[in-house]
Amino acid sequence: MNEQHTAKAFDVDLQELSRMVAEMGGLAEKQVADAVDALAKRDTTMAQRVTASDNAIDVLQHEIEEKSVLTIARRQPMAVDLREIVGALRLANDLERVGDLAKNIAKRVIALNAEFPPPKLIRGVEHMTDLVLGQLKAVLDAYARRDDAKAMAVWRGDEEIDAVCTSVFRELLTYMMEDPRNITFCIHLMFCAKNIERMGDHATNIAETVHYIVDGAPITERRPKGETEISALTGTNA
Amino acid sequence: MNEQHTAKAFDVDLQELSRMVAEMGGLAEKQVADAVDALAKRDTTMAQRVTASDNAIDVLQHEIEEKSVLTIARRQPMAVDLREIVGALRLANDLERVGDLAKNIAKRVIALNAEFPPPKLIRGVEHMTDLVLGQLKAVLDAYARRDDAKAMAVWRGDEEIDAVCTSVFRELLTYMMEDPRNITFCIHLMFCAKNIERMGDHATNIAETVHYIVDGAPITERRPKGETEISALTGTNA
Repeated sequence: MNEQHTAKAFDVDLQELSRMVAEMGGLAEKQVADAVDALAKRDTTMAQRVTASDNAIDVLQHEIEEKSVLTIARRQPMAVDLREIVGALRLANDLERVGDLAKNIAKRVIALNAEFPPPKLIRGVEHMTDLVLGQLKAVLDAYARRDDAKAMAVWRGDEEIDAVCTSVFRELLTYMMEDPRNITFCIHLMFCAKNIERMGDHATNIAETVHYIVDGAPITERRPKGETEISALTGTNA
Repeated sequence: MNEQHTAKAFDVDLQELSRMVAEMGGLAEKQVADAVDALAKRDTTMAQRVTASDNAIDVLQHEIEEKSVLTIARRQPMAVDLREIVGALRLANDLERVGDLAKNIAKRVIALNAEFPPPKLIRGVEHMTDLVLGQLKAVLDAYARRDDAKAMAVWRGDEEIDAVCTSVFRELLTYMMEDPRNITFCIHLMFCAKNIERMGDHATNIAETVHYIVDGAPITERRPKGETEISALTGTNA
C-alpha cells in the first residue's frame, strides 16, 4: 500500500514536470513569434514586451531544475523514470536558450528604431521563423506524446532552415555591397537570422532528448548537414 | 560506522564531480585560446584541431550530468551538498557552451582561408580574448576554492569585455563602409567578437553558480551593464 502510494506520488511529480516543460515550450514559441512579428511590423512596443517577458521563461527553468533534483532525491528513480527527469532538465535548458535568442532579436528591433530595413529583406527572416516555429511545435508535440518517430523527423528536418539561412545571408551581403548605407541594418538582420538558425539547432537538441527519453540510447544515425551561413560569406570577394 | 562509510563515499563523489568540472574548464580555456590563436596566425590546421576537440568537452558534460544524477539518487543529499551537485550541472552547461563558441570561431578561421583580414583588425578580438580568458581563469579558480568574493569580482568585471566588443564593432563597421571588399571578413570578425562577448556572459553565469554553491541565495545586487555591440550598430547611418 505504502509502495503504491509512493509510486502514485512519483507519477504526479513526473506529470507536473512534463506540464512545466510544456508551459515553457509554449512561452518560448510565443516569444519567437512575437519577436519576429515586432521586426516585421516595426513594433518597438511589442519588442519591449518580448524583452520583459523573457524572465518568466528563466524562472520556469529554475523551477524545473529544482523540482527535478528534489524528485530524484526523494524518489530515487531508475531507468526510464530517471531519463524522464534528466530529459526535463535538458529540455528546460534548450527552451531557455530559445527564449534568450528571441529576446536578442527583440533588442535589435528596438535598436533599429527608425532605420528599418525594407520589408522584402525581412521576408527571408520571416520564412526562417515559420520553419523554426514548425519545428518547435512538432518537437514539443513529439515530447507530449513521447513519439520517437516524430522527434526523429524534426531531427532530420533542420537542414532546410540552414539552407534558407544561407540564402538570407547571400541576399543581405548583396545589399551591403551595393550601398554602404544598408550595412548596419543588414548586420542586425544577419544576427537575427543567425539567432533563428540557432533556435533550429535547439529544436534538434530537443528532438535528441525526446529520443533519449523514449529509447534510452543515443542516436547513431548521422544527421544530414547542408551548407551553413559561413559558406555564404566565403569566396564572395574572390 | 555504516553512516560514516556513506558520508565518505559521498565526499568522494563530490570531489570527483569537482575534478570533472575543473577538467572541463581547462579544456574550454584551451579551446578558446587555440581558436583565437588560429585566427591571429591564420593557422587553419590548428582551427581544424579545435573543431575536432570540441567533442571531448561534450562527452565530459554528459559524464558530469550522469554522475550528478546518480549521486543525487544514491545519496539523497540536502542543502549545501545538493547545491554542489546542481552547481556542477550548471557549470558543465556553461562550459559546454564556451567550447561551442570556440568551435564556431575555429570554423570561421577555416572559412576565411586565403581571405584573411589585416592583423590590426584582429587585435581587438585578441584583446577581448585576453580579457575573457582572464575572467574564465579567475572564475574557475573561484570555483576550485569556493571563493565567493573572487566569483563576485568576475561577475562585476564583465562590463569591460562588452565595452571592448562595442569598440571592435565600431572599427569593423568603419572598414566595411570604406570598401565593400572588406565586408565579408569583417562580418566573420563581428561574429567572432560576438562569440567572445557571449563567453564573457558564461563566465558571469559561472560566477553566479559559484555564489549559489557557497552562499545558497541568488545575487540581489544589480550587475553593472554598459553599452553593447548593438549600440555600435545604431545611428551610424543617421
